[in-house]
Amino acid sequence: MLRLVSRAARCWGARRGLARVHPAAMQQACLSSTAAGTGTWPKDVGILALEVYFPAQYVEQSELESYDGVEAGKYTRGLGQQQMGFCAAHEDINSLCLTVVQRLVERGRLSWDAIGRLEVGTETVIDKSKAVKTVLMELFRESGNTDVEGIDTTNACYGGTASLFNAASWVESSAWDGRYAVVVCGDIAVYATGNARPTGGAGAIAMLVGPNAPLVLERGLRGTHMEHAYDFYKPDLSSEYPVVDGPLSIQCYLRALDRCYAVYRRKAESQWQQAGIQRPFTLDDFKFIIFHTPFCKLVQKSVGRLLLNDFLAATNPDTASGLYKGLQPFRGMKLEDTYTSKEVEKAFQTASQEIFNQKTKPSLLLSSRNGNMYTPSMYGCLASLLAQCSAQDLAGSRIGAFSYGSGLAASMFSLRVSQDAAPGSPLDKLLSSLADLPARLDARKRVAPQDFADIMKRREETHHLANHTPHGSQADLFPGTWYLERVDDKYRRQYARKPM
Amino acid sequence: MLRLVSRAARCWGARRGLARVHPAAMQQACLSSTAAGTGTWPKDVGILALEVYFPAQYVEQSELESYDGVEAGKYTRGLGQQQMGFCAAHEDINSLCLTVVQRLVERGRLSWDAIGRLEVGTETVIDKSKAVKTVLMELFRESGNTDVEGIDTTNACYGGTASLFNAASWVESSAWDGRYAVVVCGDIAVYATGNARPTGGAGAIAMLVGPNAPLVLERGLRGTHMEHAYDFYKPDLSSEYPVVDGPLSIQCYLRALDRCYAVYRRKAESQWQQAGIQRPFTLDDFKFIIFHTPFCKLVQKSVGRLLLNDFLAATNPDTASGLYKGLQPFRGMKLEDTYTSKEVEKAFQTASQEIFNQKTKPSLLLSSRNGNMYTPSMYGCLASLLAQCSAQDLAGSRIGAFSYGSGLAASMFSLRVSQDAAPGSPLDKLLSSLADLPARLDARKRVAPQDFADIMKRREETHHLANHTPHGSQADLFPGTWYLERVDDKYRRQYARKPM
Repeated sequence: MLRLVSRAARCWGARRGLARVHPAAMQQACLSSTAAGTGTWPKDVGILALEVYFPAQYVEQSELESYDGVEAGKYTRGLGQQQMGFCAAHEDINSLCLTVVQRLVERGRLSWDAIGRLEVGTETVIDKSKAVKTVLMELFRESGNTDVEGIDTTNACYGGTASLFNAASWVESSAWDGRYAVVVCGDIAVYATGNARPTGGAGAIAMLVGPNAPLVLERGLRGTHMEHAYDFYKPDLSSEYPVVDGPLSIQCYLRALDRCYAVYRRKAESQWQQAGIQRPFTLDDFKFIIFHTPFCKLVQKSVGRLLLNDFLAATNPDTASGLYKGLQPFRGMKLEDTYTSKEVEKAFQTASQEIFNQKTKPSLLLSSRNGNMYTPSMYGCLASLLAQCSAQDLAGSRIGAFSYGSGLAASMFSLRVSQDAAPGSPLDKLLSSLADLPARLDARKRVAPQDFADIMKRREETHHLANHTPHGSQADLFPGTWYLERVDDKYRRQYARKPM
Repeated sequence: MLRLVSRAARCWGARRGLARVHPAAMQQACLSSTAAGTGTWPKDVGILALEVYFPAQYVEQSELESYDGVEAGKYTRGLGQQQMGFCAAHEDINSLCLTVVQRLVERGRLSWDAIGRLEVGTETVIDKSKAVKTVLMELFRESGNTDVEGIDTTNACYGGTASLFNAASWVESSAWDGRYAVVVCGDIAVYATGNARPTGGAGAIAMLVGPNAPLVLERGLRGTHMEHAYDFYKPDLSSEYPVVDGPLSIQCYLRALDRCYAVYRRKAESQWQQAGIQRPFTLDDFKFIIFHTPFCKLVQKSVGRLLLNDFLAATNPDTASGLYKGLQPFRGMKLEDTYTSKEVEKAFQTASQEIFNQKTKPSLLLSSRNGNMYTPSMYGCLASLLAQCSAQDLAGSRIGAFSYGSGLAASMFSLRVSQDAAPGSPLDKLLSSLADLPARLDARKRVAPQDFADIMKRREETHHLANHTPHGSQADLFPGTWYLERVDDKYRRQYARKPM
């Protein structure tokens, strides 16, 4: 069903010098230890490379405010959003993921043979049974490599993180055969007309996972919180739009943040204690903090929320000067009593303003200019941070990461950036590959709100039609983008790729 | 939204003596090695316990033949099916999984705190965003344990296997904190009236995964084949019914079987070579073989197919006597040319009849009497095998396992049964817990085809309705079964549990 099939290229490791051992040799080594029934984890498992795809068109949030007839600043200052990327009907979750995986492999000069696992996190479900993953296997066809584990994972915006954790565990397990894992997350976030619409977005991110990574998943440092909630869900399967209880969802997000941070801190402090260090973990221990970003303003509030956590956990905080100055009235509060308190929110947002500016603001480039990508959202924050920091700024730092998916599933974990910031180092290469993000955002086409609304209407009308050629022009795609060409009478989808 | 919440019970390990180290101690040990950045895999990771849920009502396939006006034997001899379990509208994927997970924890006297990972494999998607996993978190509410990783995985019938692999990797990884993983797979397999309807079924299986297991996932022995195919999929999201290309799906299944067996054998032979053993891997090296079972007849053909693989791979097979007697005309055939050959199928099915009877037939109890459960299908075969073999028969044996999900994703792997078959051993306890399977099947209520058809019609009519009380009576449920009590106007689902 796929028209264009990509060419296998040279091994990524060969060019980048990251795979210190050839995959085949690694496989052999792994099988040896496997045969013995014992084995150890490889070193520095994490993210080796990262590719971003976002649509080539967007709408200005300030223009949307005026088009929607809401007060000026409601979307821009109120939500913290500048622009929103969107797809016409000829882009679907399969085309988004095809594009970003091919981009990862082509730009990294990776061989399709060198991938032993590929999994997809998404909530843009267009088939209840068939995974996006198996559509992506078309990219592997010429290589003959079909021994590629992993399928799709789903829980709202959390799927990418679940896939990343699965991939890292696989690399550390006896099932690992020395090849890379690829984690893809992608979504098209669209809402019915109304309040929630400006919190949409679309995009996909692919990550290459393996040992000796410049971004290492810190071992043992992971706090998870899962519970049953109906804050945001998609029970009307014939519609692209979710059912959302906005206020409940914000409370769920913040409660999950509190719980995850508590578990994360406890694990970090326990590791320190074993090393003879007795002190509390605080925000100071993260050089940067990235968040799942439904809208940017919530992230700014979240930094304040973490400061509230630090403040309440501190045994004797100085409220006369410094960071906690003037916060004495909030001593003794209980976290669970403060989710709807505007007073608490304002006080801690003000107190954490500088922390936000330093540790988090640079990560919001994609979120503010492309909008909420759902599963890739937090990884878009990571890409934004890497695109705007120098290797020297990042080297050796710890990046805190909070991933949230409604329903709900959330984890806080951390990435340790490698110390080696030299030109040509894995870190330098990773940053270089992302440096063009701002220019790529600038290169998009601005679409007037009325045209955006028309396109959304056509998506709605043609969503899930069989025997159908979707609306959308090749001209509105970046070169190298896969798109949906045709859905036949048996709902089979046929894709083509716009030439590079 | 859940009415009844279960009671936390004593730790499973405490009663069964399987968890040789207390979870907290294990967590500590893990954190130590984590802090050091190195670690080794725990011993014998695999399945510690297994629970099965199937509906309390069924239809006779022979009666269905007559009701459908097809020739006698079409479903019974042609497909190899005897009976088919089915659910009224008050059972959905959430209720199935709630029931089986609670059964696993209650019967195992496991503490909810002792579970650190829970994930769900299913293709019975009733919400595109919210995972079944988060509904299951209601069971953990009283315990306060929310640090439970894992979400839902989807690729047709393969989701359970993906979850099992993920869970085992997690136990071997640095993310493991010493607690158990639980893998749940469940599905309601229903088809529109016509040819495919008698291949339905419904059920759920929960597995407890950890170290020191009586059923060990053999390390390094795993062959996977994934490709893009439209053999069976569910693109009409408003319907419970799939789109099926039956002949294509059988070809895809058999091709995947060939490919997975080839990869599995290569890995097994490579392990042997490293141990100085030079010989081909054959069916003889599996004492038992279990398969994903869309219908039992396909599994019988599949055993023949594996024999064809052995035969074509053999350098100089004896066709004058023994197993391969009379098969000389098939020498030199290519696997890919034989998928539709009735001649090849018949010859190798006949030749493999005894192998099928010994290695596979006992595993088809649930498949033949309850039908296709989709994701739990192969694990139902495992349960059937364990329910009908003695500990002595099983001890030390290798069980080959072939998991297939349309779309397509497939893996062959193997389980090594522990040597210890003594009364009170983990193996003995596991078998004892499953010994009542035949009696539980006998205890179901037989429903006439017309009533079955009426219930299916009502499922179809009320599928995905909001503000709705589903059809179905508590009387048609086994004690302890969760059921869907109400769907409110915002599609939020409320469950209750029939008393034990």
